Order: sequence, then C-alpha cells, then structure tokens
Amino acid sequence: MRTIEHWSVVEDGSVTSPLGFQAGGLHCGLKKTDRNDLGVILCEVPAVAAAVYTTNVFQAAPLLVTRDSLKDRRLRAVVVNSGNANACTGKQGEEDAFAMRAEAASVFGLEEGDVAVASTGVIGENLPMEKVIGGISKLPAAAAYGTDGAEQFSQAILTTDLVKKTACVKLTIDGHEVTIGGACKGSGMIHPNMATMLAFVTTDAAVEPEVLQSLLVDTTNVTFNMITVDGDTSTNDMLLVMASGLAGNEPLSPAHPQWEAFAEAFRYVNESLAKQIARDGEGASHLIEVQVEGGNSDTSAGAIAKTIVGSSLVKSAVFGADANWGRIIAAAGRAGEPIDPSNVDIKLGPILVLEGSKPVAFDEEAALEYLKGDTVQIFVNLHGGAGSATAWGCDLTYDYVRINAAYRT
Amino acid sequence: MRTIEHWSVVEDGSVTSPLGFQAGGLHCGLKKTDRNDLGVILCEVPAVAAAVYTTNVFQAAPLLVTRDSLKDRRLRAVVVNSGNANACTGKQGEEDAFAMRAEAASVFGLEEGDVAVASTGVIGENLPMEKVIGGISKLPAAAAYGTDGAEQFSQAILTTDLVKKTACVKLTIDGHEVTIGGACKGSGMIHPNMATMLAFVTTDAAVEPEVLQSLLVDTTNVTFNMITVDGDTSTNDMLLVMASGLAGNEPLSPAHPQWEAFAEAFRYVNESLAKQIARDGEGASHLIEVQVEGGNSDTSAGAIAKTIVGSSLVKSAVFGADANWGRIIAAAGRAGEPIDPSNVDIKLGPILVLEGSKPVAFDEEAALEYLKGDTVQIFVNLHGGAGSATAWGCDLTYDYVRINAAYRT
Repeated sequence: MRTIEHWSVVEDGSVTSPLGFQAGGLHCGLKKTDRNDLGVILCEVPAVAAAVYTTNVFQAAPLLVTRDSLKDRRLRAVVVNSGNANACTGKQGEEDAFAMRAEAASVFGLEEGDVAVASTGVIGENLPMEKVIGGISKLPAAAAYGTDGAEQFSQAILTTDLVKKTACVKLTIDGHEVTIGGACKGSGMIHPNMATMLAFVTTDAAVEPEVLQSLLVDTTNVTFNMITVDGDTSTNDMLLVMASGLAGNEPLSPAHPQWEAFAEAFRYVNESLAKQIARDGEGASHLIEVQVEGGNSDTSAGAIAKTIVGSSLVKSAVFGADANWGRIIAAAGRAGEPIDPSNVDIKLGPILVLEGSKPVAFDEEAALEYLKGDTVQIFVNLHGGAGSATAWGCDLTYDYVRINAAYRT
Repeated sequence: MRTIEHWSVVEDGSVTSPLGFQAGGLHCGLKKTDRNDLGVILCEVPAVAAAVYTTNVFQAAPLLVTRDSLKDRRLRAVVVNSGNANACTGKQGEEDAFAMRAEAASVFGLEEGDVAVASTGVIGENLPMEKVIGGISKLPAAAAYGTDGAEQFSQAILTTDLVKKTACVKLTIDGHEVTIGGACKGSGMIHPNMATMLAFVTTDAAVEPEVLQSLLVDTTNVTFNMITVDGDTSTNDMLLVMASGLAGNEPLSPAHPQWEAFAEAFRYVNESLAKQIARDGEGASHLIEVQVEGGNSDTSAGAIAKTIVGSSLVKSAVFGADANWGRIIAAAGRAGEPIDPSNVDIKLGPILVLEGSKPVAFDEEAALEYLKGDTVQIFVNLHGGAGSATAWGCDLTYDYVRINAAYRT
C-alpha cells in the first residue's frame, strides 16, 4: 500500500524516455502482413543489465544467447523478432540465434557479448535467416531517440496482442531526474503455436549490477510471476532491464537513502506492464485482481491468490458476472496452503459476500453492476498471519476458446 | 499394460452386482425437478470399508461424519443426497450431517457408526432438513437388490452430469466368483456452486481392512487423482469402497496368490469410472488420454501427464482438432519435472509429430481425422527413465464457458 508516491507517471513514455536509449522497428518479412516484426533497443553506453527467463524446461535458442551476453551484466543492445519463436529448433536454431547476435553486433559496431537476442512467435520452425539478416542490416537506420522509434519497437514485438503495452515513470534521486520506461508483449500463449511474454525495461539510473539483478528478481516475483492468463508458461518468456546510468545519480543499492523510492517506482512500471498483459489476455473482457491477506506468509498468500485468479471456474464466473464465492473459496482451498477454514472473508470489490466463512446477504443488483466493470477485484482475508499478495488474471470467455481452437481446415 | 485380463466385464453391472448389496433412490425435494436426490447403498453384513477424501482445506460437513464412521473400517450403509453439498455451512451443517446419519441408522436399524453420509450440490446453503429426514424415512422401502435399485441410486447421486456412470467386473478367486461394481458422479465443478466427485465401489470379496484402504489409496493415485476437467478440486470429493466378503474367498492381501488379479480388476473399475467422469466433463466433446513414458519416476511422469491434459491450450487445440505439439511440449516443460529437452517424442494417436524434439512431417489429413475421434490419445516419450503414467481429461469448448458463466439476471 503506497500512501506517498515518490514518482510521477510519464504519459506515453516508453523505452526511449530514459537518457541514452534509442529504439526502432521494421518489417523484415517474418509476419505475413506488413506489420513490424523486427526491433531493437540501443544504449549509447554499456548499460548495466539484468534478466529473468522462463522456467520452462524447453528454453528457446535466443535465451541461450542472451544468457551468454549477460554474463558480464552489461549490454549495448537487444534485438527482438516476432513471428517466429526460434524454439524447439535444435542446433540450427542455436546457430541462427548466435548469427542474429553476430549480425547485430556487426551493423551497430558492437562486441557480440554486448548484444542480447529475443524471439516470439511460432514454435518449431526455423528462422528464415535471409529475411532476418537482411532486416538487421536495416535496423541502424530505424533506430532513433524519442517516441517514434519507441512506437516502432513496441509494434515490432507484438504477436497477436490487441494493444501495445508500455509504462513510464520519473522520479528524483540525488537531485537528478531518473526515468524508468518499459514495453512488453504477451497475453499467455495467444495463438496456435505462438508463445511468450517479453518485457523490456530501460532506465537512466545508475545501479550496481548485482543490485539490479536482485531487484529484477524480487520485482518479477510480485509482478510478472503473479499473472496468469491460462496457466501456461511459454518457452520464450524473458524480462530484460538495462540501466544506462546517464541520470548521474549516486549508484543505487539498498544502502542508498532513496533506494525504496526507486524500487517502488521500478515495481510500479513492472506491475503496470504485467497487468496490461493480464488485461489483454486472449478473449478477455475483464482484468481480475485477487488480493489475499492474512496468509501464513507472503509466499503462501501468493500461491492462494494465483490459484484463485487462475481457476477456470472463477474466471468463467467473472465472465458471467456471477458473484460466486463458492468457487473462490474452493480454489483457495486447493492451493496447497494452510488455511483456517472457519475464518475466511471474501469481498467482491466493496461488497462483502462471506464473513467468518459464513455467507452474508448482499445486494445482488449492486454485485452484478460491480462485476460488469472492467476491473474486478476479489479480496480474501484468511485471518491467519501477516502474509499478503496480489495476483492478476482475466476472465474466461467464448473468445478464448475461439482464438485457441484453430480449426485447420 | 495388461496382456492377460483376469476379469470379465459385467454389462450393466453396478453397485448391487456383488453379493450382499442393496441400493435405492428417490426424490425428497432437494432438486427442483422430480429427479432423484437421495440414495442409499446397504450391505446385509458389516462390510470392510475404506475411503479417500478431497484434499481441499474446506471439507464439507458430510466428510466429517463419514470419517467418524470409518474409524473402525466397517460400514453397513451410505446415504447420499444431491442438490445440496452441505459445504461451508458451519456448525449447523455438521449437526445436519450427523442428523442424517442418526436418522438413517434409526430407520435401517443400524448403529450410527455403521452409516456413512455424502452430499453433493450447491455450496453454502443449509440442508432443508425436513425434506431430508422425510426422505430418509422412505429409503428402506426404496432399497432393493438387483438392477432397479442400483439405477435409482445412480440417478440420485447426479447433479448436472449428462450421464450416469457405472462399471462392473467379475473374476474368480480361490474358485469363488468375486464381483466389483461401482457408480460415480461428477465432472469437475459443473454448475455454479455445485461441486464434487463422488464414487462408490462395492465388492463381495473378502479383504482385510488395512489392505482395502491401502489398495484404495494406491488405486486412486492412478485413477481419480489422474483426471482433470478444469483443475478444480471440490469441497466434497469422496471415494468409498465397501467389501461384504460374501464371495467366500480367503481374505485378500498382498500375500494372496491372486492378489494381483484382484488389484488389477479393482483398478479397472476405478479407472473406468474416472474416465467416464473426464469424458462427461462440462461441455466436453472428447476424452483426452495422455500417456507419458520415459520419465524419471512414475510420480514425475504423472505430474507431466496431468499438466499436459490440464492445459487450457492443449484442451482448446483438441477441441479445434489442431495437431499442435508445440502446446503439448510447452505444457510438459512447465510441469516442474526434469526433462531432457533434446529428446522428446510426441505422437497423436498413431501419428508421430515430434521425434528427438524435432518436428517430423506428418499427414495433416490423417491427423485431422484422428483428432475428430471421441478419444484422443497423446503419447509422450521423454527417454529419461522408467517412469510412466496416464492422465485423463477433456477438451475445452464453448459449452464449458456457457455452462460456467451463469448470468444471474
């Protein structure tokens, strides 16, 4: 709960809002339409970098390359293609991912180890490398400071997302203005064979390398790891953050007096991006936010929150505007976490529906109206401890089935 | 894999097929229509009994009563109502469940500790006890040997299942004919607020009490615990087995020379019931069976099989007749189990689609035809060990959403 926000939102800000970053995008031929399918974020100095990757056993080839480049926690660029995930592509796929890195390093005049690679799209098909290499050679002309380049990049990373997803805040640290921007894509595994959640966050803050990695891990645990669209984790998920340091502040670490402010601003950006992904879940018509408090621990509360927001029956009930606490409590009870079954409260938005595990009378009309709103909040108080957590998801609709049941006739 | 079946299927057999069992059902007023909503299984001798219950933290009141009756592993009767789960009903619910037991014991002339109770239906509403007690008083007249009583019972336990679900086999042990019959209900949490999977298995085999409990636990782990319709576990799930011993065989235990034959026949009945539940999953148009072999262990293979068959994307793909191995492999990879990502084979029925983690060309027409069949089998070979497991589920369809998104206008 934030009572004082140390940051302010930058409307229409994105990955090029922090000092030192250019971005760009173009169409190189991976997508059938002429939509952008190749993009780049470029930093004019070696940026301190950190990343987190999917825990899926099947890791797409680009992740191998990016892990290699991130060994020294420094990056100058990340090249991203959509339309092809370069996943389950064997040795050829690995060679292709390294070739993407090599070409990008070449055309931008960089060391290969300063370039990361990401891919999203169809699984199991090799990259058409002539198109990719050809596209990369045109990226330097496409990369630019400012909003146009950022817009091109945001479009380049989308697969069948309905909307681009960006976020940006600024705050003051050591008297210097620091900006944090981000762009992401994904809404679960949206389209037959397409995968992935990708997020790119840039900042001009000066941050120590190991500190940035820790912050990313901690922040991911309460943002991107707390969203579920359909429970699936792709082969390509990756979150990458680059910090140019050009804001000129004293390098941030937990010892810095304004560390908390920075960490909260960073969390806000990631949370915003994560919620946008959940809201754009395939077929979704509602964002669902589940807040659990009174759990044994934050981890326990988190497991319960994710189980509730991931329950097909809870998701369907939201789609149907059904104030159905029975499904919420049943989902909570199967999360594998300890709960005192006699002392659970549940609220749907402002409407109390269960108190001390006993149903309470409520205004059905008011509940129906509330459930028709774009965001549906479910509050669960377990009265068991100090653990709390929030998870996000979306409703389960006919469109989800339509989008995912692709008839191949 | 069974090469020799020691048993034979008894067509239209059910819970009254084994010696010593009567069953019955009637309408007492819990359901709005005049469908049966109260049933009983009665054994003319104290049957050796065993049960397994939901692991959901929220355990419905009837489970408390049944656990109490099963302390001595003996039962004479089980009374079941549908239309109301008597779950999340607090102290009143517990009193009502004990009152059901007391009334049943009274009208059948039994000790209370020899009677079990089960309920299924709406969560969070107290039982209308006048109707229930009134109905129980009429059960002795309804209970009968033979198929009519069993049919009435099978109907009485259904909530919104489309079909009743029964299974029955017979085999010879020590020269005595032994029969195992069963009836169940459930297809996940089918209807708003309705819950539960209930299964009742009867046999006339003589079995030692602790042995029957162990057998039930082991069998449940590879049958009912390996089905998933929508991932939800209700507050009322219960499996109950009663063994009258009237077949006259030497009491069965793992030391008995025909133990394996009995255990396999028992497993067949439970597996049949479990698969019928999966096939009757809300909105389902296909049964999906996932067989995993080459896992590190049976448990590991089981976790992977369940993750695949529970994946919304795999389920949608089956609905859409889409031969989509990318989703299958992504689901396998997020099961949290070790897998060598470079050596996975996947077959859809007889059609090989992935070999050594490389896609293989296949006849798309043949795949489409195969996927239109009622049962879709997915075979996954991980080439990692000797672990194997099978899990069952169903496709995700528009009807699932329609059934579960109940507009409350």
